[in-house]
Amino acid sequence: MDKPKNLLTRDKMRLVIAMLACSAASMAQAQVRNNLMPQPAELRDGSGVLPLTSTLNVDTPAWHDGRLQQAIDRAVRRFEMATGLPHAGPGNVAGTHLIVRVKGAGEMVQSVNEDESYALKVTTDGAEIDASTDVGAMHGLETLLQLIQPDGSGYALPVVEIHDQPRFRWRGLMVDCGRHFEPIDVIKRTLDGMAVVKLNVFHWHLTEDQGFRIESKVFPNLTRKGSDGLFYTQEQAREIVAYARERGIRIVPEFEMPGHSTAWLYAYPKLASGTVPDGIRREFGVSNYAIDPTREATYTFIERFLREMATIFPDEYVHIGGDETPAPDWKHNPRILAFMKRHHLKGNAALQAYFNTRVLAILKKLHKRMIGWDEVLTPGLPKDVAVQSWRGVASLNQGAKLGYDGILSQPYYLDGMRSAGDHYLADPAPSNSDLTAAEREHILGGEVCMWGEHVYARTIDSRIWPRTAAIAERFWSAEDVRDVDDMYRRLDPVSVELESVGLTHLQSEDAGLRELAGTQDIAALRTFASAVEPVSFSERYQQQHTNQLTSLDRFVDAVRPDPPSRHWTELLTRRIFADPVGDSADREQLNAWFSHLSDAVPVVQPQMQSSPRLREISTRAEQLAKLSRVAHEALVYLSSGNKPPSGWKQDAEQQIAEARKPSGMVRFTFLDSLQKLVDNVAD
Amino acid sequence: MDKPKNLLTRDKMRLVIAMLACSAASMAQAQVRNNLMPQPAELRDGSGVLPLTSTLNVDTPAWHDGRLQQAIDRAVRRFEMATGLPHAGPGNVAGTHLIVRVKGAGEMVQSVNEDESYALKVTTDGAEIDASTDVGAMHGLETLLQLIQPDGSGYALPVVEIHDQPRFRWRGLMVDCGRHFEPIDVIKRTLDGMAVVKLNVFHWHLTEDQGFRIESKVFPNLTRKGSDGLFYTQEQAREIVAYARERGIRIVPEFEMPGHSTAWLYAYPKLASGTVPDGIRREFGVSNYAIDPTREATYTFIERFLREMATIFPDEYVHIGGDETPAPDWKHNPRILAFMKRHHLKGNAALQAYFNTRVLAILKKLHKRMIGWDEVLTPGLPKDVAVQSWRGVASLNQGAKLGYDGILSQPYYLDGMRSAGDHYLADPAPSNSDLTAAEREHILGGEVCMWGEHVYARTIDSRIWPRTAAIAERFWSAEDVRDVDDMYRRLDPVSVELESVGLTHLQSEDAGLRELAGTQDIAALRTFASAVEPVSFSERYQQQHTNQLTSLDRFVDAVRPDPPSRHWTELLTRRIFADPVGDSADREQLNAWFSHLSDAVPVVQPQMQSSPRLREISTRAEQLAKLSRVAHEALVYLSSGNKPPSGWKQDAEQQIAEARKPSGMVRFTFLDSLQKLVDNVAD
Repeated sequence: MDKPKNLLTRDKMRLVIAMLACSAASMAQAQVRNNLMPQPAELRDGSGVLPLTSTLNVDTPAWHDGRLQQAIDRAVRRFEMATGLPHAGPGNVAGTHLIVRVKGAGEMVQSVNEDESYALKVTTDGAEIDASTDVGAMHGLETLLQLIQPDGSGYALPVVEIHDQPRFRWRGLMVDCGRHFEPIDVIKRTLDGMAVVKLNVFHWHLTEDQGFRIESKVFPNLTRKGSDGLFYTQEQAREIVAYARERGIRIVPEFEMPGHSTAWLYAYPKLASGTVPDGIRREFGVSNYAIDPTREATYTFIERFLREMATIFPDEYVHIGGDETPAPDWKHNPRILAFMKRHHLKGNAALQAYFNTRVLAILKKLHKRMIGWDEVLTPGLPKDVAVQSWRGVASLNQGAKLGYDGILSQPYYLDGMRSAGDHYLADPAPSNSDLTAAEREHILGGEVCMWGEHVYARTIDSRIWPRTAAIAERFWSAEDVRDVDDMYRRLDPVSVELESVGLTHLQSEDAGLRELAGTQDIAALRTFASAVEPVSFSERYQQQHTNQLTSLDRFVDAVRPDPPSRHWTELLTRRIFADPVGDSADREQLNAWFSHLSDAVPVVQPQMQSSPRLREISTRAEQLAKLSRVAHEALVYLSSGNKPPSGWKQDAEQQIAEARKPSGMVRFTFLDSLQKLVDNVAD
Repeated sequence: MDKPKNLLTRDKMRLVIAMLACSAASMAQAQVRNNLMPQPAELRDGSGVLPLTSTLNVDTPAWHDGRLQQAIDRAVRRFEMATGLPHAGPGNVAGTHLIVRVKGAGEMVQSVNEDESYALKVTTDGAEIDASTDVGAMHGLETLLQLIQPDGSGYALPVVEIHDQPRFRWRGLMVDCGRHFEPIDVIKRTLDGMAVVKLNVFHWHLTEDQGFRIESKVFPNLTRKGSDGLFYTQEQAREIVAYARERGIRIVPEFEMPGHSTAWLYAYPKLASGTVPDGIRREFGVSNYAIDPTREATYTFIERFLREMATIFPDEYVHIGGDETPAPDWKHNPRILAFMKRHHLKGNAALQAYFNTRVLAILKKLHKRMIGWDEVLTPGLPKDVAVQSWRGVASLNQGAKLGYDGILSQPYYLDGMRSAGDHYLADPAPSNSDLTAAEREHILGGEVCMWGEHVYARTIDSRIWPRTAAIAERFWSAEDVRDVDDMYRRLDPVSVELESVGLTHLQSEDAGLRELAGTQDIAALRTFASAVEPVSFSERYQQQHTNQLTSLDRFVDAVRPDPPSRHWTELLTRRIFADPVGDSADREQLNAWFSHLSDAVPVVQPQMQSSPRLREISTRAEQLAKLSRVAHEALVYLSSGNKPPSGWKQDAEQQIAEARKPSGMVRFTFLDSLQKLVDNVAD
């Protein structure tokens, strides 16, 4: 019953299964299994370990409050889950000794200047966290959990000393809850994930053309007419603010004005600059409606609204949006034109600057600071307004040179479906930029942006995670922490850790595939899915004109961006052509993986016939069979050094080119790697 | 690059993947793709289909209320998810026409006699649901969703006429939230799942030795001292009652008395029969503490408590538990013995009967009916008390003969980790029993029981689902609907449907495996897990003395009971030996599956070394390699008809016997099938 020793079939699964492990194994042998993400500022290895034979027994000999205790309780629970150790009974004083020594709670309202530093020391006897604030202690607890490592028959903490603080003060994630509403549960688990990777700002994009998502009791039509009934009550919003504070996270609310305001204007037409919408907007893209900056009543309204919101959102910053306001009414409405003339305002930008100045005055009365997107940065803007750059680092630096605080967002747009590695390498304030040290101080940090056109509760997690964990490291760790391979090695366990706090980014793919196939029987479909990823927002929009009512329950919605296969095939391909050249095992692994893929095709194809929603990927299935064959052949030629028959290369390149064309709203993850294989075949 | 045509390796995955499909394919070709679970009372096939090209446009020309509208809205949303059709814009009147004609809401408080019948008619033009009550209409909507089938490039409903009503009036699921607390989200998704398969009673086991889970404002210590802070507020409980009512489900609360009452007595020692606990109980098993039935203060307390609970739980029935009360105090406490003598009460059973009578009188004052476990059935018990049988059908029938209403539970204990097929065949009132028709009327139905020792939020779904769907069919459908193979065929899509309403029973396995392995890289571990299942409650308890503080994050907790491999291997094996004998494809499929399993072993083994929590299954991994070899060899001998070498059979049986011994708290799913293969090898 011996099995044939054929590369293509023997132990295929074993090879495929080893795909992630291959990058992890070598480095995991280091003394401290450094899986930390983000990497700490300073880590000193000791020798020995603290064996974990019972659950944590935590002392707080200095400062102690309810928030710290809750953070400790959550950490203990996760510690028990990670080690399988039983809960301590009530009043139990035995256990692995952890001292959490904190100077004080930190600021009443967490600010951009909160002291987040901590030190973590593990000895063979116990562990200690020292921090100035609750928030610092929370970061220390997260680091401690990530240090847990296998040790013989159980787990241990390595002896280590860590001194850590963030590189940037503003490490945010923006979630657009306007275009699609995200339920409270989604927000909570997102905050849980943010805490794991030490992000500290949740930028809550609460209003959009497509929906007004926060209850106003002063102006109830905002949600009554502007939300399809999908909005956060004030009680829920306060609950989220408290939930975030318990996790060391600020909530910065955004109320878009004067553009992106269809929902405001449908609810209260008197705010409009002339033309009035007849409903909230279902289509995506930039709208022409705008709030009227020329009426005093507008500012009375906004003041009453912001005053009410200030009772819910304690953060110093209020985001007023301010982007994308073409506002044709401002060019044509005689009343508005007359106002502009009277006030010597030349053009829409000047009128919007006037609007911003008025809103800024309101915010100052409320003791708030204003933040807005790039467009708010107009001549004469007071220097205490912060700018969020969606236009990129040049725009950000321009602001910094003028003395404006800024945060970078453009390289961190998740709906572009770029890889974690791409996002990871984009630095908000690279040391080789032309900013002076003082100017550099104005770069507060960055924000990951999750725009809402193509996500909803079931799919948003896999769009945000784990890529956001890699970006979180960019915001926290030193500039020179930029080894992409090592980042991906650590991203694997961190992704699992994020799942353990309740995120669904890993399990949602299979759930989606089962739903599409109408059966649990998705082994082949899962294999197929592992080699594709969703196309970017704009590519999808070109293939399918989506709007707010479009179903987001398709194959493209089930699969996740940047699945492990992308970096893994790239890494193996790189090794194959490295100097000195990689060993044949790399080729064998790639070969086995392509066999695995091509075996899946004939199983997936009949499923597409019985599951109409899967049919849109049938072209991709056909292509996968062909591309796998190209890969096999290329590997054979590379291995033998033989020349392929004439026309082979042209044909192979043709297949790759075909596969790069839009189809099914998904793309293959391995095409660049395959191209490299083909390019290197002798000709 | 042709691959060798070897059975063991060629297209292995394809074969394995086809495992579920093999039972489904043949029957799916029937005119109506009858995936309904539970099967309706009467179904008439028409010809043709109603093509589904736009979302549902629902008219309610007769009765209409908020509850019905919400049920319709939920159904429309699921319809859109199942078909990928876009949402209708607001005010849209186009769409697939569905009329829902209901006579009235139904009872103010849903009772055991609620009219749940409905008719569903699909023509080529549209669909109609007729029902007397909202609840009947909800059942009709569930049936409609299960009828959706692929049709060319889209989906359709088959032309069909269904007249349906349940066989039993009481179709329940009990969840023990005492031993481990289950968060509100778990309860809600459980109710969602129940609605899918037309269950109508959620029996909420709210108090246990290990925790008192419902807030009393009258007696706040019940949760303050008795719950570790894990309890439902009254507001939450009311929310659950409303949530259940919206889904046609009654909530029957259970307050255990006079036994299983450690939490009551720790909170209020004055209730105790002498000895007083010094904390809530952490150990499982029967406790000796009991409420004191001899004091008037006891009944004053219980009356005030039940009066308060009646403001939360509107259902006619209140479950008082009443089981397992050894109460040694009742045998030894002179004061209690004196009371018993005074009242001519001989022994504990008589004292408990006295207690029950007193509690019954209180419930009558509150216009409630009493239900209790078997033990409440003592001589002289008034006939309007209902009995829930945990002792089995004999005990149930005995009650029915005496004129007591009863529900059957014993064959539906999920923690026994029996197969869906086993549970499915147990009938609450088989027509061949010796009950008269009138006596049979007393069998109200049955209840699935999910006891809480070994489940918590992350694992409970896979213990309840999908097995409970099969039992739900037993409670709803005709007695002669008992084709186990067809049940399993339908259980596959229903399981996916249950996932689509939010249950995590399918995705939790992989999530658990990832957490144990600390990596996403679980393909081999998943394969291994597919061939094992958790052992029963008592077998686990023997292997590991668990208590309330034990970690439930082990391998046994990740894997699910009765995975598809169990029935699939059984079915294939049965076919191989059927008359006329099955074709060689069946043998090939089995063979390929065992190859798949044995390939997984060498990948899983190193993972066990780097993941201490996986080590407890290392013996099972070694056994799996050996058993796969036995299977391969057996199939070769069966195929050839050759005799194995002397000693082979003995050796094979030895391997199987070894594998039946306890190890790792999991057992293989295929041992009976493998035994059958070995038995049939010539000797």
